[in-house]
Amino acid sequence: MAKANAFYAQSGGVTAVINASACGVIETARQHKDRIGKVFAGRNGIVGALNEELIDTGKESARAIAALRYTPAGAFGSCRYKLKGIEENRREYERLIDVFRAHDIRYFFYNGGGDSQDTAHKVSQLATAMDYPITCIGVPKTVDNDLPLTDCCPGFGSVAKYVAVSTREAGLDVASMCDTSTKVFVLEVMGRHAGWIAAAAGLAAEEPGDPPHVILLPEVAFDRPRFLAKVKATVDKLGYCVIVVSEGAQYADGTFLADAGGKDAFGHTQLGGVAPFIADMVKSELGYKYHWAVADYLQRAARHIASATDVEQAYAVGRAAVELALAGRNAVMPTIVRQRDQPYRWTTGEAPLKKVANVEKKMPKRFISKDGFGITPSARQYLAPLIAGEDYPPYRNGLPQYARLKRVLAPKKLPPFEV
Amino acid sequence: MAKANAFYAQSGGVTAVINASACGVIETARQHKDRIGKVFAGRNGIVGALNEELIDTGKESARAIAALRYTPAGAFGSCRYKLKGIEENRREYERLIDVFRAHDIRYFFYNGGGDSQDTAHKVSQLATAMDYPITCIGVPKTVDNDLPLTDCCPGFGSVAKYVAVSTREAGLDVASMCDTSTKVFVLEVMGRHAGWIAAAAGLAAEEPGDPPHVILLPEVAFDRPRFLAKVKATVDKLGYCVIVVSEGAQYADGTFLADAGGKDAFGHTQLGGVAPFIADMVKSELGYKYHWAVADYLQRAARHIASATDVEQAYAVGRAAVELALAGRNAVMPTIVRQRDQPYRWTTGEAPLKKVANVEKKMPKRFISKDGFGITPSARQYLAPLIAGEDYPPYRNGLPQYARLKRVLAPKKLPPFEV
Repeated sequence: MAKANAFYAQSGGVTAVINASACGVIETARQHKDRIGKVFAGRNGIVGALNEELIDTGKESARAIAALRYTPAGAFGSCRYKLKGIEENRREYERLIDVFRAHDIRYFFYNGGGDSQDTAHKVSQLATAMDYPITCIGVPKTVDNDLPLTDCCPGFGSVAKYVAVSTREAGLDVASMCDTSTKVFVLEVMGRHAGWIAAAAGLAAEEPGDPPHVILLPEVAFDRPRFLAKVKATVDKLGYCVIVVSEGAQYADGTFLADAGGKDAFGHTQLGGVAPFIADMVKSELGYKYHWAVADYLQRAARHIASATDVEQAYAVGRAAVELALAGRNAVMPTIVRQRDQPYRWTTGEAPLKKVANVEKKMPKRFISKDGFGITPSARQYLAPLIAGEDYPPYRNGLPQYARLKRVLAPKKLPPFEV
Repeated sequence: MAKANAFYAQSGGVTAVINASACGVIETARQHKDRIGKVFAGRNGIVGALNEELIDTGKESARAIAALRYTPAGAFGSCRYKLKGIEENRREYERLIDVFRAHDIRYFFYNGGGDSQDTAHKVSQLATAMDYPITCIGVPKTVDNDLPLTDCCPGFGSVAKYVAVSTREAGLDVASMCDTSTKVFVLEVMGRHAGWIAAAAGLAAEEPGDPPHVILLPEVAFDRPRFLAKVKATVDKLGYCVIVVSEGAQYADGTFLADAGGKDAFGHTQLGGVAPFIADMVKSELGYKYHWAVADYLQRAARHIASATDVEQAYAVGRAAVELALAGRNAVMPTIVRQRDQPYRWTTGEAPLKKVANVEKKMPKRFISKDGFGITPSARQYLAPLIAGEDYPPYRNGLPQYARLKRVLAPKKLPPFEV
């Protein structure tokens, strides 16, 4: 393929390391100026392509781009916007092609989770369906760790580390106060459908009795009497109990423990507030004084405590995406391939987008302890390397100095479009 | 005074750096073996003295004691237990003296906040009231930063740093999603009576438009229409709004927002938390999609992101406490004395316990911006040095390696006592 421009966009919930993938894409593209001209980043994801709001990353200094490696959240803006199928919404795809053609874009890099890989897959079909030649590569990202065909998902390792570190720290706090004060601490973490994040809290426990003592996973139907009995037994034995609950914790019939009622753009139920629900249950049934925390965005934005492994992998999939595109691959996503557990070795591979799109990787049953309240040695073996290593951002005046981009939009060439 | 043993105890809510003070006390005492014999630490604070549960810190290695410098929470156990006045509860004081006499304890170091300094002050009165010679030194500690006569309180700088860093990170997250998703983020932080911690979030904003955009302080009566107007104006201008709310935020009549009996969309009473209360108010009045977080113990246990200044000061007051005792001072508390703002210079001083006990330092009015939703340059000048510097704990397998003490109890010499 002759020299052409590239489009990169961030999609869905952001992470502590999605910008490291952007850094990998842009820095690698800059090393191949003979093949890739400009890299445009969509302002607010794919919406930026539809609106012809293309951030010209060429206007950013090498230093600013390098700073993306240690900057959390989506530096170009992300979006929750799912393209429908080509048959249902031909208009949007025609618009994409108009914008791509107007700006000579022949490379499409889409950085996101399951829904986003579905979008990437649909765009890849444009080549044949609408006769526009484009190389389309997905770049994996999700704190939920639920993409198939990759050993893990960039973004997950850092939230896993945050949750494990926070559980250890808060656990020490409760342990020191429990004799005369709080006996039960509940930490709510993300994970709508899969308990990967809650499971990672289990890494905090290295010796018998260490917190967390109870993990409530979406994979295990919540059983109120069994749960309360476990909490009571733990407090009787240790004097306190640390509970980590996934926002997706649910009853046997699939009802979420805390269902806030609303729906997001994808029709997913809005969750939140299972921690106070659980804490109140413990208080009213067992009478223990409690505290609870809801980490929410803090956990996925916590670049200050990112996993070095995760940062490296996020960068690597960005770099690999460009390399795959230049190697003539299309409709694929770079993956993380685990070569061995200890010492941990990994490399990048690739998976076809059609096999990635809309497939959700569940946590294997063998990762969940028999009583359903903890993780197994297999889970630890899988999870431990993903949180390994620290990769601190630079600080000034006591605060991390994250990238501030200029975000200069390329001049528009087309009439406006109603998204 | 001839050689005698020392008693050290941790009291009240723990912090990321109270063990650094313990480290300062014990390491300094070990340098003066001619004057101070054993250092006993109360198991669970003063309760440990009443129960004659005295942890013999001499059984801990130099390495374990050094590790306290980077270990959060209360390594010896803390307590919420306030001694009454000597007249009201002579029995407890007599017991304390029995225990002190049995273990030749003539130095008393009590590490805590306002209530604890009151306890320390009462114990100091034993010398004259009950004819038992004891040197009594308070060691300041509180995330609430509300002790008088000291420029700041060890423990506050680290929670301030955690809150400022988290606000910056979560702010970037919301900013990247706001076009198509969450527009308002609410972070609830500690501070029941004073807004010091919420105010510290303001440090995250270094340029106009930076989050946080609204800080709700207990010092400023909550005005619903003005608050909602401010949130709307912020979203209109920036596309999103980050709100940091103190758990102590209150109406003009002193009612806490969190206790206001809010109801959720289903008419259920809110299970606690001013953050969900505020978020729900914003949603129902302005219609914005929201997220909220409650940091709770995570903020005060977050040793992984402690302020280096705070760690140094926590250690320094521990060291100074022993030095004051050895210099023959009694019924005093070492303080932090600010010598200059920029470059920040500080040293330790001392204050009499009778002037510290039960006095609460409020945040000055000049620290609060005119509209009541932010902090002033004076506040920034005061707060900024307190979060300066990073002091990372050592990590293994991706997790901070905090001290694990043996906590060997000294053999009991007295009959049991009913606390």
